[in-house]
Amino acid sequence: MNVDGKHYRTVWMEGGAVKMINQPLIPRFEIVTLATYRETAEAISTMVVRGAGAIGAAAGYGMAQVALEAPGDVGFMDYVERGAETLRRTRPTAQNLFYAIEKVLGAVREAQSVDRARRAAVDVAEALADENAAAGEAIGAHGATLIRDGMRILTHCNAGWLAFVDWGSALAPVYMAARQGKRVFVYADETRPRCQGAQLTAWELEGEGIPHAIIADNAAGYLMRRGEVDMVIVGTDRIAANGDVANKIGTYEKALCAAASNVPFYVAAPTSTIDPGCPTGDDIPIEERSQDEVLYITGWNEQGELCRVRLAHEGARARNPAFDVTPARYITAIITEHGIHRPTELPHPK
Amino acid sequence: MNVDGKHYRTVWMEGGAVKMINQPLIPRFEIVTLATYRETAEAISTMVVRGAGAIGAAAGYGMAQVALEAPGDVGFMDYVERGAETLRRTRPTAQNLFYAIEKVLGAVREAQSVDRARRAAVDVAEALADENAAAGEAIGAHGATLIRDGMRILTHCNAGWLAFVDWGSALAPVYMAARQGKRVFVYADETRPRCQGAQLTAWELEGEGIPHAIIADNAAGYLMRRGEVDMVIVGTDRIAANGDVANKIGTYEKALCAAASNVPFYVAAPTSTIDPGCPTGDDIPIEERSQDEVLYITGWNEQGELCRVRLAHEGARARNPAFDVTPARYITAIITEHGIHRPTELPHPK
Repeated sequence: MNVDGKHYRTVWMEGGAVKMINQPLIPRFEIVTLATYRETAEAISTMVVRGAGAIGAAAGYGMAQVALEAPGDVGFMDYVERGAETLRRTRPTAQNLFYAIEKVLGAVREAQSVDRARRAAVDVAEALADENAAAGEAIGAHGATLIRDGMRILTHCNAGWLAFVDWGSALAPVYMAARQGKRVFVYADETRPRCQGAQLTAWELEGEGIPHAIIADNAAGYLMRRGEVDMVIVGTDRIAANGDVANKIGTYEKALCAAASNVPFYVAAPTSTIDPGCPTGDDIPIEERSQDEVLYITGWNEQGELCRVRLAHEGARARNPAFDVTPARYITAIITEHGIHRPTELPHPK
Repeated sequence: MNVDGKHYRTVWMEGGAVKMINQPLIPRFEIVTLATYRETAEAISTMVVRGAGAIGAAAGYGMAQVALEAPGDVGFMDYVERGAETLRRTRPTAQNLFYAIEKVLGAVREAQSVDRARRAAVDVAEALADENAAAGEAIGAHGATLIRDGMRILTHCNAGWLAFVDWGSALAPVYMAARQGKRVFVYADETRPRCQGAQLTAWELEGEGIPHAIIADNAAGYLMRRGEVDMVIVGTDRIAANGDVANKIGTYEKALCAAASNVPFYVAAPTSTIDPGCPTGDDIPIEERSQDEVLYITGWNEQGELCRVRLAHEGARARNPAFDVTPARYITAIITEHGIHRPTELPHPK
């Protein structure tokens, strides 16, 4: 998608280097160049890159770097296997990361020579990134059919192109509708505690020239009740077999608000997000993160420096569940790269 | 209520001076001494004191200062009337402010001498503050009958003693239950955008020794769905004749969450909050405040200084409705100083 009129992906490869947008610095735009796979691994573990799709692509490119850096002799496969293990340890719960590492590793193992292995590693990594971008674009095309000219759309957290390689999930239909000439307006929930809506979603929308306003998470219900929201679109981290979805904390509250005001509530995600082994949303483990994410907040001070401030008294305590579950009955439809599905009639993941 | 083991009211009079807790600095505790009525007026208009009950008491004390400072000759009443006008202009929409000013003014006008007028002004101001504290205590006593040992109570914004003279509204039942020896645990919604829950409610609870945790507003629905909340108690800024209530933005979302999980949802307020002239919640005007309240946040940096940071890109836009309306059908009961009422069977305001 666009930043200051120029197209970028969140992560890509140039020669032997991996380049990625430094996401914790957004709304400041900075590209990081990672010369070796160890630097790429470090960037993944320190969350320079975030979002399932973007992490997967970064790990694929990291594996390509491993193959390029490995010695061209009998030590090649040993170096590759150790590199894969280093990358696996960066984000131990990221499903897409393991998928990408195994894909590249499989291609390397099957290659007939070191040269071919290196080429295959780069090709597979590029294909993984392209697939992710294509899935986003397809979600956008399907979702855009739901958006009429003039619609006001509310979204929660960031399920835009920054979380993927390009396009995104929840925001892909918005970007596609805008490119089709439809006028859209987006309400971006700021999404406490980590403020991905205020920091990432609003910045993405600005780059694409889409009119928008940030709102406190508390204001979503008010705007829906006043008839100022025509649809809600959110992303998801995991879809259970019964159509329940886990997503950023607060998604469930927005779904209740939408139901109370008869506002359609859509979930957008690639089919790789569907977990057929997980019967219901109640079977999805919910991570509780550090209380400091609630007690402190990071922003830009008047000198333009990133600054962390404390919101409550010293010694204050907080609970910080990071995700919640929205039952399928509150979901109007789930948008995937294959089409628009009732939550109870999901396609099989590829 | 207690701060570091010592009892305080939010505002009181000592000799000719008005003293009040400097509320914007909380969680830092500082008492401001206002030597003249002009200083008190300035403190009201700059929101050193906030909350309907506390503002009313401060205005009453300010009027007492006016009477004490006025010349003891024919210029007395002229000075008093001009002082009243100055105080009226400090917060033009605060109902309790006008009420307190008129009460003291009436007593001054009726007095037979300047000396008696001065004494009456101080007495009426003290009586107004005492009445407010007594209403809070009565709300606490009624509300505490709903609280059983071990309950986990969620509240939104700050309707504690800092918003009144003492006790508060939503938190008064919690304080009373704790003094009755019941163990209670409070979840304090941080209450974006102004974070009164994180900054004021959590600090109040700390002072009273009540176990609590701050949560992102987004987490309230999750905790209720998990069965971790036994009741919700909130305050209100205005109660319509049909039992709809206006309160801090986000209250409506919490009411929907409570209804979805069968958690009782209580509203606590003195009967002076009931507006019989307002037929329904839809007739209550909702203030939209500066977008900077959403785009910036103020907290304490590592050097212990108050610091404002920007959360989104420069030039970002926000919507900032400050209140919302919760329909009466989501309210289990309304707790006033007179008892516990169904929202459709409210007592007449005194």
